[in-house]
Amino acid sequence: MTNDLDNLRVVLVATRNPLNIGAVARAMSNFGALRLRVVNPYEKAFREARSAVGASELLAKAEVYDEVGEAVADCKLVVGTTAVGARDMQHRLYKLKDGALSIKRQLQTAPVALLFGSERYGLSNQELSHCHWVMRIPTREEHGSMNLGQAAAVCLYELVRGRKTAVPNNVSSKSAKKERVSANSGEIERLTQVLLQVLQDSGYIKPRAVAPDEKLRRLIRRLHLNPNDADVLLGMMRQVAWKLGVNEGGSKKD
Amino acid sequence: MTNDLDNLRVVLVATRNPLNIGAVARAMSNFGALRLRVVNPYEKAFREARSAVGASELLAKAEVYDEVGEAVADCKLVVGTTAVGARDMQHRLYKLKDGALSIKRQLQTAPVALLFGSERYGLSNQELSHCHWVMRIPTREEHGSMNLGQAAAVCLYELVRGRKTAVPNNVSSKSAKKERVSANSGEIERLTQVLLQVLQDSGYIKPRAVAPDEKLRRLIRRLHLNPNDADVLLGMMRQVAWKLGVNEGGSKKD
Repeated sequence: MTNDLDNLRVVLVATRNPLNIGAVARAMSNFGALRLRVVNPYEKAFREARSAVGASELLAKAEVYDEVGEAVADCKLVVGTTAVGARDMQHRLYKLKDGALSIKRQLQTAPVALLFGSERYGLSNQELSHCHWVMRIPTREEHGSMNLGQAAAVCLYELVRGRKTAVPNNVSSKSAKKERVSANSGEIERLTQVLLQVLQDSGYIKPRAVAPDEKLRRLIRRLHLNPNDADVLLGMMRQVAWKLGVNEGGSKKD
Repeated sequence: MTNDLDNLRVVLVATRNPLNIGAVARAMSNFGALRLRVVNPYEKAFREARSAVGASELLAKAEVYDEVGEAVADCKLVVGTTAVGARDMQHRLYKLKDGALSIKRQLQTAPVALLFGSERYGLSNQELSHCHWVMRIPTREEHGSMNLGQAAAVCLYELVRGRKTAVPNNVSSKSAKKERVSANSGEIERLTQVLLQVLQDSGYIKPRAVAPDEKLRRLIRRLHLNPNDADVLLGMMRQVAWKLGVNEGGSKKD
């Protein structure tokens, strides 16, 4: 099976913080984008990120370029990312979810570059000039600028969001199914009767209460118990009824 | 206009790394989720995160709790997050995009808690027992575990993804009118505790049972009790507990 992000190149331009480079690499690995390119990174930061404990193969294989132009040369679509209210007005600006649609279409046939600028300045006009268009994550105006690793994670998530992953947990669907089937009337009735007894023995229901079972039955119906839970509750209440009976028996003896 | 995330409580459980706490706070601010709660944080990490340069007002206002139960007591919906292949098979597991739909619906009328576990272990079974269901981000099986700050950013992004416009800044204390359809976590917890006592006093739960409250809490959550029924059941079980206690007292006297 081919990976839907095989054609994606994540391009970090002039990144300064090794932790951010590592964080982007981690998010890439999480979502299955395995080709990282770095342009003109702060040398020391990149070395540190590469040699960090647990640094991934992905990071080890990252390709280093001097210029954005070289880093995107083989890509048919080049997309920049920006914070809300970006200064650059010369590019079409798409919301992430809309831009991601175009990217996914393009990824089916050709390499696409997704560019992230430096932590402090974002992408410069020079760097943006390599981009076909620009995407932004819908952050608040008051605090638009995201952490680099988080911005990358969000963009990559959007690209795989509709992905048909194998849901690993057989159990989850089984338990969901179990929850949908509700207890039958016989089970509800048994629970009603034993709870009724418990409530009478405990004094909650007074001896002269009129049709106390009706309210109780309605209450239990509203719980939409699945058969298993009905069974568990029945077992619990039987034990409580037994204990109350034993105690009563005990007091009677006195 | 009210902020669509006013009702969201982001709850960090046993977080160890101050950088991660800071990163979650930043993503929250980016997307307009302004209420952070931390449960049992590594003291030093939390202090560091709070005092970090540029630490936000959001972080300064974070509420600290000792127990998950307290941190989610006012929430009507409690959602856990997990990596792919989570060990816990007792919860319904939704994809992020599907779970987010339910959360958004609930946020319109009542507080919702979104829980993130510790960096190393995620949410424990005990912590998960407070959750109605669990969401997972669609990461690769080969590398499912995300960085905490990135996971939070992705979840919050999904919650605002369809948002129409930039959201105003006001930390509105005026939350939407509370339409109480189902019991909140505080009510569920009270019922859990009194039923636990009844089951222990009756001998249904053995003295050496391990974490008996977890199963019980999950069972009660599955009932989708409305507040009135929760109240009625609580009254019933209190009476039963009282009666069992009186009887025990009686036998002790003998």
